[in-house]
Amino acid sequence: MSKLYVVGLGPGGAEYMTEEARAALARADVLVGYTVYLDLVRDMFPDKEIFTTPMRQEIERCRRALEMASGGKTVAMLSSGDAGVYGMAGLILEMSGEFPEVEIEVVAGVTAALSGAAALGAPLMHDFCVISLSDLLTPWETIKRRLRCAAEGDFAVCIYNPCSKKRRDHLRRACDILLDVKSPDTVSGWVRNIGREGQEMKILTLGELRDEELDMFTTVFVGSSKTRRIGDRMVTPRGYENKEQN
Amino acid sequence: MSKLYVVGLGPGGAEYMTEEARAALARADVLVGYTVYLDLVRDMFPDKEIFTTPMRQEIERCRRALEMASGGKTVAMLSSGDAGVYGMAGLILEMSGEFPEVEIEVVAGVTAALSGAAALGAPLMHDFCVISLSDLLTPWETIKRRLRCAAEGDFAVCIYNPCSKKRRDHLRRACDILLDVKSPDTVSGWVRNIGREGQEMKILTLGELRDEELDMFTTVFVGSSKTRRIGDRMVTPRGYENKEQN
Repeated sequence: MSKLYVVGLGPGGAEYMTEEARAALARADVLVGYTVYLDLVRDMFPDKEIFTTPMRQEIERCRRALEMASGGKTVAMLSSGDAGVYGMAGLILEMSGEFPEVEIEVVAGVTAALSGAAALGAPLMHDFCVISLSDLLTPWETIKRRLRCAAEGDFAVCIYNPCSKKRRDHLRRACDILLDVKSPDTVSGWVRNIGREGQEMKILTLGELRDEELDMFTTVFVGSSKTRRIGDRMVTPRGYENKEQN
Repeated sequence: MSKLYVVGLGPGGAEYMTEEARAALARADVLVGYTVYLDLVRDMFPDKEIFTTPMRQEIERCRRALEMASGGKTVAMLSSGDAGVYGMAGLILEMSGEFPEVEIEVVAGVTAALSGAAALGAPLMHDFCVISLSDLLTPWETIKRRLRCAAEGDFAVCIYNPCSKKRRDHLRRACDILLDVKSPDTVSGWVRNIGREGQEMKILTLGELRDEELDMFTTVFVGSSKTRRIGDRMVTPRGYENKEQN
């Protein structure tokens, strides 16, 4: 049977990859993905066939990966983070009906919500939402509604794609929606270039976050009402301390 | 400097661990955790000192881990999944003020939301919430509010701790709250024993999920209004197909 692995590499270099992901790449004849992801693993597998397409040609890239698998090659399609979170797993499965002979296996990886949280401390210890501010594929009205519901539910919120060249003010607009419900003192944070050279991070208030200038390589965290700053870490308690007292 | 790693092992065996997690365990003098997690890694590191405490004694376990690190040992505290998602990272950081000499590093892992999603297909491809139904540490009113907000925001929802011996009807009550807003035909799924022997899963509707008898080793997924069943997979589209058409 033809096989296509859809593999999440984790946030940065090879050290954030699971052994399952490494094994899937090792079994593959062809590695498919953006150049930047392939560069992360090329040194590990110098003899593999490589197929890259430019950014934004997702449908074409998925079709080629499925065609190569259908033709008898074992294919590994690479995403950074987790292929199942704003990655390629969904599109591959949506197109899989045309390629019933290809067996598809999704290999989970550490998405930026988790790796960024670990860098900041433990902001997602309790219930949380993950929301992308990219309106390329989602109406802005839907994004606004989700931000409002996340705030009303007092979730910790992890924000992907806080801005881009075309959407400079999305983070500010998102913060304003959250600020309709949440205190401007809500503990927040961001991490840039997670797991890569030049990783940097900052803990600040939601009111301050509103005026930050961030780029598309940054993941943002906004706490729940319970989230605290402890030293240089951002922590959402799970409640054990309260339990002991009660 | 004394060092304490708080390490997420991923869902099951060693293959789901990142290289970063493996390296942290290798550097540790002592491994701390529940017996069941230690069993997963004992074979990899047969010579390590081991410290276990029973379930529920989280504060005592964290204090001992910090004390051992303070005493000069390099300590790795193990969680399944990700230590930063309903794990031990938050509690360790909350208690860290008493041990300023201990440097704490959180090592992210693949939490059940991601590993379970990969097993089912790609249910968390777009914006999602993670909610625990455990009311040991959280008032049920808070959990209800979050479920309602998650439904109103049309998020995909991943549910941890769907039931326990004491809370047999929590999943049914949670589904009823979601059903106030969401269609009973909403595509849903569950995965049991993720990444372990006896892994099983099922895709079903939200109406059917309401009547399932699940245990605490199960992670539940309820789709957004866009989530579809494609063959034997649960997929939340990200929207590329629409984009191409527009």
